[in-house]
Amino acid sequence: MPSYTAPTKELQFVLHDVLKVSKSAVPGYSDLERDFTAAVLEEAGKLTSEVLAPLNVVGDQEGCTLENGVVRVPTGFKEAFDQVREGGWTGLDMPEEFGGQGMPSILGTAVGEMFSGANQAFTMYQGLTHGAASSILAHGTEQQKATYLPNMVSCEWTGTMNLTEPHCGTDLGLMRTKAEPQDDGSYNITGQKIFISAGEHEMSSNIIHLVLAKIPGGPDGIKGVSLFIVPKFNINDDGTIGARNGVSCGAIEKKMGIHGNSTCVLNYDDAKGFLLGDAHKGMRAMFTMMNEARIGVGMQGLSAAEAAYQNAVLYANDRLQGRDVTGVKNPEGPADPLIVHPDIRRSLMDQKSFVEAGRAFILWGSSLLDQSHRADDKDADGLISLMTPVIKGFLTDEGYDMTVKAQQIYGGHGYIEEHGMSQFTRDARIAMIYEGANGVQALDLVGRKLAADGGKHVMAFFAMVKDFCSENKDVEGMEAFVEPLKAASKDLQTAGMFFMQSGMKDPNAALSGSNDFMHMMGHVCLGLMWSRMAKASLEALASGTSDAAFYETKLATGRYYMARRLPATSMHLARIQSGAEPVMALAADQF
Amino acid sequence: MPSYTAPTKELQFVLHDVLKVSKSAVPGYSDLERDFTAAVLEEAGKLTSEVLAPLNVVGDQEGCTLENGVVRVPTGFKEAFDQVREGGWTGLDMPEEFGGQGMPSILGTAVGEMFSGANQAFTMYQGLTHGAASSILAHGTEQQKATYLPNMVSCEWTGTMNLTEPHCGTDLGLMRTKAEPQDDGSYNITGQKIFISAGEHEMSSNIIHLVLAKIPGGPDGIKGVSLFIVPKFNINDDGTIGARNGVSCGAIEKKMGIHGNSTCVLNYDDAKGFLLGDAHKGMRAMFTMMNEARIGVGMQGLSAAEAAYQNAVLYANDRLQGRDVTGVKNPEGPADPLIVHPDIRRSLMDQKSFVEAGRAFILWGSSLLDQSHRADDKDADGLISLMTPVIKGFLTDEGYDMTVKAQQIYGGHGYIEEHGMSQFTRDARIAMIYEGANGVQALDLVGRKLAADGGKHVMAFFAMVKDFCSENKDVEGMEAFVEPLKAASKDLQTAGMFFMQSGMKDPNAALSGSNDFMHMMGHVCLGLMWSRMAKASLEALASGTSDAAFYETKLATGRYYMARRLPATSMHLARIQSGAEPVMALAADQF
Repeated sequence: MPSYTAPTKELQFVLHDVLKVSKSAVPGYSDLERDFTAAVLEEAGKLTSEVLAPLNVVGDQEGCTLENGVVRVPTGFKEAFDQVREGGWTGLDMPEEFGGQGMPSILGTAVGEMFSGANQAFTMYQGLTHGAASSILAHGTEQQKATYLPNMVSCEWTGTMNLTEPHCGTDLGLMRTKAEPQDDGSYNITGQKIFISAGEHEMSSNIIHLVLAKIPGGPDGIKGVSLFIVPKFNINDDGTIGARNGVSCGAIEKKMGIHGNSTCVLNYDDAKGFLLGDAHKGMRAMFTMMNEARIGVGMQGLSAAEAAYQNAVLYANDRLQGRDVTGVKNPEGPADPLIVHPDIRRSLMDQKSFVEAGRAFILWGSSLLDQSHRADDKDADGLISLMTPVIKGFLTDEGYDMTVKAQQIYGGHGYIEEHGMSQFTRDARIAMIYEGANGVQALDLVGRKLAADGGKHVMAFFAMVKDFCSENKDVEGMEAFVEPLKAASKDLQTAGMFFMQSGMKDPNAALSGSNDFMHMMGHVCLGLMWSRMAKASLEALASGTSDAAFYETKLATGRYYMARRLPATSMHLARIQSGAEPVMALAADQF
Repeated sequence: MPSYTAPTKELQFVLHDVLKVSKSAVPGYSDLERDFTAAVLEEAGKLTSEVLAPLNVVGDQEGCTLENGVVRVPTGFKEAFDQVREGGWTGLDMPEEFGGQGMPSILGTAVGEMFSGANQAFTMYQGLTHGAASSILAHGTEQQKATYLPNMVSCEWTGTMNLTEPHCGTDLGLMRTKAEPQDDGSYNITGQKIFISAGEHEMSSNIIHLVLAKIPGGPDGIKGVSLFIVPKFNINDDGTIGARNGVSCGAIEKKMGIHGNSTCVLNYDDAKGFLLGDAHKGMRAMFTMMNEARIGVGMQGLSAAEAAYQNAVLYANDRLQGRDVTGVKNPEGPADPLIVHPDIRRSLMDQKSFVEAGRAFILWGSSLLDQSHRADDKDADGLISLMTPVIKGFLTDEGYDMTVKAQQIYGGHGYIEEHGMSQFTRDARIAMIYEGANGVQALDLVGRKLAADGGKHVMAFFAMVKDFCSENKDVEGMEAFVEPLKAASKDLQTAGMFFMQSGMKDPNAALSGSNDFMHMMGHVCLGLMWSRMAKASLEALASGTSDAAFYETKLATGRYYMARRLPATSMHLARIQSGAEPVMALAADQF
């Protein structure tokens, strides 16, 4: 069975050495002293590695079952969920007024990485609740907040998001679910939603579904979509739980992975629903949830890669196979451990250098969210809006690839289910798909975010990279970082210019390169993260740290990324510059 | 359920337009007239698309089960296997003297692509038999050939290869299975083998296991390994089937994919075995089978990509989602089909341009095998020996990626098992692992094959590319091929030079770049294949073909590969040139 060690030291490094959170002026950040975050992370780490991680394989093997409308979750999930609730983890970064702990979202993200890494399918139950609660928090009336939030913050009630229907996923304008206004101000919801994660189960006493539907007579397409709160059990005026509402689970899907999460077909038959936010502004309200969810999904890509990597390292050190070509390393044994072989190291370094920079990228993104929400910083808001599709799309594409690499280190033992390496890839695969497939992320980035506010935010990002390079170009030890970062950033800017110039004439010229641009930008972001981590490591070493090995390892890992991963930008640029013609040349029937 | 259309037209194009097989001087090739191969491929295509493809999902869902030592294969497999046998497909390229049809291996490969594409798990039963029979053909005594081959060629008896043990996969020198010589000239085999594909089942009346084991007192390590024939049922002197031999199935593995194939733990307890080939030369004998098997596995990567691609195209044309940004394409419908979107096309073109060139690469490789075996051409033998790790490693790495891309086109519908897209990726995943994990292929290429015969074969390959470029540099329509091919080939040569120069001082400098080199070489090979296919297409167009659309599509697909896929070589070169330092910098405990 695979193991999971909570990466608390790595998280502390990013929070304090790199982002220096407790010195930030963002409201609430001064609480995030090193000792405090250490205590929180250690406690979460214990729970995730000791309770959630052992249930990961159980969830995969047992899956969820539907019998007579009741969904049974895997053995141990309910007890573990109770433990998570009791620890107060579900409301860590939720407002105190609704029973949360009021911590900044960056701390929730740091803790969330460990939850997802230990057990992705399990963590989705609370993750979706968090998203649904955020939506009610942002768009609900005072009464709605009072009715739903305390129980959702504690996960006494869980939440879901209902977008997809059998015939529409990305294109939600095609939606058919209807919401008929009733005399009492409520709506009568009818329709079918599919792929609803955590859609039905008995781990919570109620489930609060957020459902997109159309009010008859409203505008056509996406502009006629509204968002509704539809509880599994109606809630009485005194707040107690009433009769069952008209929503039921018609089936649960057989999936490639995340078997521990119940992915439901939900049938709404005259279900009682309540408008959340304004009529016909459902997408806006849903996007509060979606943006948070997209960053959370990016984190799933990262955390799956971390968990798989940890096990690959253990196996590479343990499994004896072949000899080091430069000289025997384990003369007493029948062979040397796998880790002596350069190609095994190449794979492990790919994984390690991705995971560590990806973690910094996500935490930096969370700090931008906090700056935006807590300090009302419009620039930070613009920047995280630009970065969201990159965090989601790039980190899940790459994160998945890393789980495949980790699995490969096990050879045949990675293909059988016994060691759990197959599960990491099967679970990680969904992250490239849900919350907007990665093609949609790339489209969002290139078609919308790049040009937002006159291109202000991408310019700010380029300026940030440029300033970093100027400031550090003569710093000893930074040569291996500054030059490659400059080159990669130049590739990215060239691609952006190409889009501007050719996209005017033909939007397909930009859209044909959207996936490549998203990956380029991801690499530049991780290159920037490695450069910052290198700078922080050099500072720690200069200050005479007692943990020099840790910082030296960081520098070596960063140099690997800059030398061996970052050159991908030139390939992506070449592809982008080939324009739309090669991509669009064939008629549909020539494929 | 996914469908499979046999790509007979594509196969005919490569065989006749590109490789011009019937005009080749290789013995047996003059039989391969266009009409004859068309008839064979059509017949095989019918069988694969109508009989084998519908059983693919059945195999995945039911899997194999072990009860009281008996392995039950999925519903319909036995009947389909009978049909395959009756059609004479199992001995297509086997010698007529043993009941085969004596066709060149290139025809077996062309047919094999369709078998694997339709049902990989099913096809492995006959594929392993073919490999085992080839080994007996090459290394067996006349009596062994007479005893085993007729029934193996017809697949009345199936075959297996037994290498792996729990503690050793790649490093077979660690093997513990013992073969004690007996007075009657046979050996007593004792030990445990794992991951034995098609290891036990009841679709054939006997199973002929080829088993690597050590004769006590022989040399240590890999030099003390011998190969044995161990039948499941002993064979009486009159050729009839006798008593059960001491080999039994201890368990079947639960795997990520290829559920329809029984992957067995085989326990050998005083099993009666017969030496195949010379004592202590087991690896040599096994490699006859392995080299054939490696090309077959490369084909699995390709054929999985083809099957997944076919379904992705159908879905992209069928699924209505969003609108073409350059103008509505399906005004009567609620939305345009997915295929209007540039990023969907980018993905489909990646798949299409890979599959078509990969097919040409494999068939060209098979033609080299035929040249080597049938015309005793040492140069062809050296070249296919160089190409084998590229065919296996590159085509399975890329083939797997393509199945992931095809799955992605389905969005959430690709993640649930209902549409079969998950199965393509889960099945394709094994091809990167078995018959030598792809890291071992890269090591074989860089550590052994590049320098073989003084580097003669890689030089011959470079010369072949150079000659092609010189001959075609002024041919109208070839500009988009010749220049990129030259540039990519130059990158590959530069990498080879880097290995020669730095590898002298430090073997790790070459081995750190082995995976990148394998991928670079794969790209250059596919670039060469596209250039040849372009040339053939231009010739067909110039000769006034009635099927101009087919050849125009080929040219456009090829231009896509050259413009958008081939530039990967510069990234791989940059990684290689960073040398061993970034890869080897960390101590084992720093990971």
